[in-house]
Amino acid sequence: MMPNINSSSFVKPLIEYMEQYHPISPLLATHYATQCTRLTVKKNKHIVSPVDSNAALYFVVSGIVRGFIKDSNKDITTWFCFGNNIVGAIRHPDLQPYHSVEYLQALEDCELIRIPYTMIEYAYSNFEEANVVGRKLLALHYYAASERSILARIPNALRRYRKLEESKKIDMNRIPLRYLASYLGMRFETLSRIRSKELNKAAQEPVGA
Amino acid sequence: MMPNINSSSFVKPLIEYMEQYHPISPLLATHYATQCTRLTVKKNKHIVSPVDSNAALYFVVSGIVRGFIKDSNKDITTWFCFGNNIVGAIRHPDLQPYHSVEYLQALEDCELIRIPYTMIEYAYSNFEEANVVGRKLLALHYYAASERSILARIPNALRRYRKLEESKKIDMNRIPLRYLASYLGMRFETLSRIRSKELNKAAQEPVGA
Repeated sequence: MMPNINSSSFVKPLIEYMEQYHPISPLLATHYATQCTRLTVKKNKHIVSPVDSNAALYFVVSGIVRGFIKDSNKDITTWFCFGNNIVGAIRHPDLQPYHSVEYLQALEDCELIRIPYTMIEYAYSNFEEANVVGRKLLALHYYAASERSILARIPNALRRYRKLEESKKIDMNRIPLRYLASYLGMRFETLSRIRSKELNKAAQEPVGA
Repeated sequence: MMPNINSSSFVKPLIEYMEQYHPISPLLATHYATQCTRLTVKKNKHIVSPVDSNAALYFVVSGIVRGFIKDSNKDITTWFCFGNNIVGAIRHPDLQPYHSVEYLQALEDCELIRIPYTMIEYAYSNFEEANVVGRKLLALHYYAASERSILARIPNALRRYRKLEESKKIDMNRIPLRYLASYLGMRFETLSRIRSKELNKAAQEPVGA
């Protein structure tokens, strides 16, 4: 059931995404349709940076988004999103101010739905189901962040690479190697060397093995 | 208001902790009192390890808990908890099986309240406020996990140490240095060197500077 909003509404992918976790009431769907905005961001452009106030989450309809921080003017990639998911710059749920230390960047042309935090807070206060959906989504994001934290603490570069590959969380072929290297905490040259070794090894394995 | 449970009930610290975020109904408090169990774990003992099923969260009433994983038989510390907080081994919210890859270890004698996941699921299904509290706690844990993930990706050991120190998240004097080193992704010797340099520097700064 896609309640009360036009079936061609731009928020449809977001509502469908949330309804995987719990039904959304018609009234709440209408709130999303009126409070959210559609956004397209060109490849390589920033969606959020520390000069912006960190006032919204984004549902990624299509495209790839990268999160990163700056450390001594060097980019450190913190995560990737391949679409059909909600992203946001890191933000303490209670503390002011809301300027982000994290950047969000489009790695491909991105179609996004901007969800203001004011809308989300309103939904939590007025719609029981928003708390159920929010709780389930946060559990998934918490799990993913814990996994990223564990991955980054594995001391050996090859084992970090293999763990990421085995997780099948990231389509490595769609990510520029320099971002993958910074996500994996290794130099570009190390990642190149590891990748060609691993690809060679895979090519030499007998078919069906 | 401490509703419907004996004011000396062992779950009191847990209920008070949750009521910081949202009032807990008397009936839900009673469920916690009947379904949770009290647990004391001696210093250095495991609370959860991969041989156990990962069937519960733990409220840390007192003591310090360390999370860690094994990588090639080496411990990698993933987080610390200094009490008055809920901890659990990493667990995907939907996927079976529920055996943990993460260990939970008492770094001091610990007083814990064991909260079975079956109890938590029952609360989510039957008590609106459980979803509000769960959503708020998960937002805080998601934030903390994102911070840990960012910390671990900073390439320079000294800057990792300083970032952790500045965050004031961890009482470094209560943690054995070898665990702190593995959490910070550096060798024991590197951490010792950094610490004595930083402490010397602090000692040489004029008072009031």
